[in-house]
Amino acid sequence: MKYLNNSFLIEHVKAEYLAKKFGTPIYCYSYKKLKMNIIKFKNNFKSFNPLVCFSVKSNTNVNLLREIRKLGCGADVVSIGELMKALKAGVNTKKIVFSGVGKTTKELNYAINKNILLINAESKSEIIEIEKIAKSKKKIVNIGIRLNPNTDAKTINKISTGKKEDKFGLTEKTFIELVKYTKNSKYINLKCLSIHIGSQILNNLSYEKMLKVIDKVVKKSNHKFEYVDLGGGIGIAYNNKTKKFNYKKYSISISKFLKNHNSKIIFEPGRSIIGDTGILISKVIYIKKTKSKDFIILDSGMNDLMRPALYGVNHRIIPVIKKGGSSKKTYEFVGPICESTDKFLTSKNFQKLKEKDLIIICDVGAYGMSLSSNYNVRPNPVEILIKESKINIVKKRQKLIDLI
Amino acid sequence: MKYLNNSFLIEHVKAEYLAKKFGTPIYCYSYKKLKMNIIKFKNNFKSFNPLVCFSVKSNTNVNLLREIRKLGCGADVVSIGELMKALKAGVNTKKIVFSGVGKTTKELNYAINKNILLINAESKSEIIEIEKIAKSKKKIVNIGIRLNPNTDAKTINKISTGKKEDKFGLTEKTFIELVKYTKNSKYINLKCLSIHIGSQILNNLSYEKMLKVIDKVVKKSNHKFEYVDLGGGIGIAYNNKTKKFNYKKYSISISKFLKNHNSKIIFEPGRSIIGDTGILISKVIYIKKTKSKDFIILDSGMNDLMRPALYGVNHRIIPVIKKGGSSKKTYEFVGPICESTDKFLTSKNFQKLKEKDLIIICDVGAYGMSLSSNYNVRPNPVEILIKESKINIVKKRQKLIDLI
Repeated sequence: MKYLNNSFLIEHVKAEYLAKKFGTPIYCYSYKKLKMNIIKFKNNFKSFNPLVCFSVKSNTNVNLLREIRKLGCGADVVSIGELMKALKAGVNTKKIVFSGVGKTTKELNYAINKNILLINAESKSEIIEIEKIAKSKKKIVNIGIRLNPNTDAKTINKISTGKKEDKFGLTEKTFIELVKYTKNSKYINLKCLSIHIGSQILNNLSYEKMLKVIDKVVKKSNHKFEYVDLGGGIGIAYNNKTKKFNYKKYSISISKFLKNHNSKIIFEPGRSIIGDTGILISKVIYIKKTKSKDFIILDSGMNDLMRPALYGVNHRIIPVIKKGGSSKKTYEFVGPICESTDKFLTSKNFQKLKEKDLIIICDVGAYGMSLSSNYNVRPNPVEILIKESKINIVKKRQKLIDLI
Repeated sequence: MKYLNNSFLIEHVKAEYLAKKFGTPIYCYSYKKLKMNIIKFKNNFKSFNPLVCFSVKSNTNVNLLREIRKLGCGADVVSIGELMKALKAGVNTKKIVFSGVGKTTKELNYAINKNILLINAESKSEIIEIEKIAKSKKKIVNIGIRLNPNTDAKTINKISTGKKEDKFGLTEKTFIELVKYTKNSKYINLKCLSIHIGSQILNNLSYEKMLKVIDKVVKKSNHKFEYVDLGGGIGIAYNNKTKKFNYKKYSISISKFLKNHNSKIIFEPGRSIIGDTGILISKVIYIKKTKSKDFIILDSGMNDLMRPALYGVNHRIIPVIKKGGSSKKTYEFVGPICESTDKFLTSKNFQKLKEKDLIIICDVGAYGMSLSSNYNVRPNPVEILIKESKINIVKKRQKLIDLI
């Protein structure tokens, strides 16, 4: 994705062309970027050859999941719906892990029938429920137990998951108790210690601390874990100022850890695989001038992209056609939704815009469409995957009539 | 809605019965409460007989809209989708107003074809767009112009809409300019001054200030407004500690205003009509005990009810079956979604709960289902309207298979 003669390209296709052909807003993904991300991710950790289970919640598009599967990934799912999508995308059941604090009996039943690699349990009650189902089916079920390492991921509070006040995982004490409990179970095979400390993590230190806790707890538990599932959470640079995550350092730390523990590592990356592969192409409907700033009213709203409203975070915005020069006015990019929270970015020195101009909201591949809604009875945008010059509609634009 | 023999009733129907029959989660509404709310709302302002246009964005269920229409309300819509829903519900076009900062050409075209009461414009560009379409159709279009009174609604920052830094409405200066502009237009008939300062307002003072600004601007504009649309925003008591809004005082203020201005008042209430008519019935999947608190993991998540995650607000939670006694542990009610923000309420002294118990999340009639999503590939809950003993499914539970 880059500019050529001042026109933004996704691989060989002009964003402007897509807007003309399909209307706006459009979610558009680059296959090349996706492929590169997966190759790079694996390369970063090739010394210990981890199992990479893509975090389906970050992007649930079945056609994208199929490409991700073909590129060698498994799936990390958090609901029966996500599990069904992973299966539809052809993901091998032996590469699927099931996470989440609230798996229902129906969901566990389904997962057990499908013989997936691991059910990562998050509470004693869940383990008992799994045992009950396993017994009724006369099956031995492979599980992981999620440890809450009480580690601060130093990320946005709303997406931290590894502190003791968070609902996720189990304390060291309960974890050790449950390891003992499973040793006596005929129907449960404890294969994995799983952990996940949060999202959009850019600081290696949090992972270092996490590995120390795992090291300690594994030793204490006196159990041989075939897998250690380190979860996901590696952040991406949503703007140019952000320090990039140091993969090398993380890989070295894990290799050190593995010297004392002969386990297969599982990762559950979402954002780091798909985040920067997606853009949202949008049109300026109106420009509303005020004394202090101009409101750039887009045809995308918080229903299409919830992250700014939900987490108070920003996505970069760039023009589809670069014109040079910059506006003296501050621009506030907002959506058409009747809520003040429907606001994307405040930007200074943006190139001068006029109504009907096209812009791009960057890095929306993860938690973009998956968090979208029909608020204000607005249909979901079309999703397009570009492979070189080929335009693949991976999900059609929702029809308004189907919402009425 | 009340307890009878410790079992929660919606009109004559037990919440427990609904959970057994339809599974959970369930959005359930009381017709009687809806009817009472509308009658009360109108009674509060009967001295000047306003046009009450229900704010469709707060609840877009067509079957509920039909009941609201039958109870004498019009509709306030913010998109072509909402307009189509209002029409489907049989709302008279002469009782429909169209609000919103980002109406597209397609949306304006549709609204103009339908001859709705008013298009409340929010920018000069929009007025020019309306004029262009009107001219092409050789029609005279009735519009309102939205004034931004620069009044702080003293509500949650995220739902304030009437401050000058918000994207909504026009400043006094631009408003007056546009009044002049429309006087010279052959295709536009300026009938209305519209205003809306925010949501969940409990303080009369904000409305008093707003009325003073309108009084001043109308006088200055030297224009006869057939309608003054005061918007909505009247808050409800989400908990017992909240001071209730003083309708009487507001009504008196408006009556005073009308002594100097012979206009028909329009209201756009949403929450105050539908907010407390709806509950979300949910089941406890797991209880996860920790030292400091117990996590009560529900089968409803932030995808079903976004308000706590999005605005950081709380909804009361009550048991379906009252048992008396209270837990010594603090309860944290959370959903099954893999996000820390998927958390509803922290509660002390709640009655002791066990797994599979049913609970009710209160006052979810407004911005409940309308803000819901399929995050984590979770289907939307069923919506049920109770009329005495009659159970009406007003929207079926979404089928999982339709999401895959």
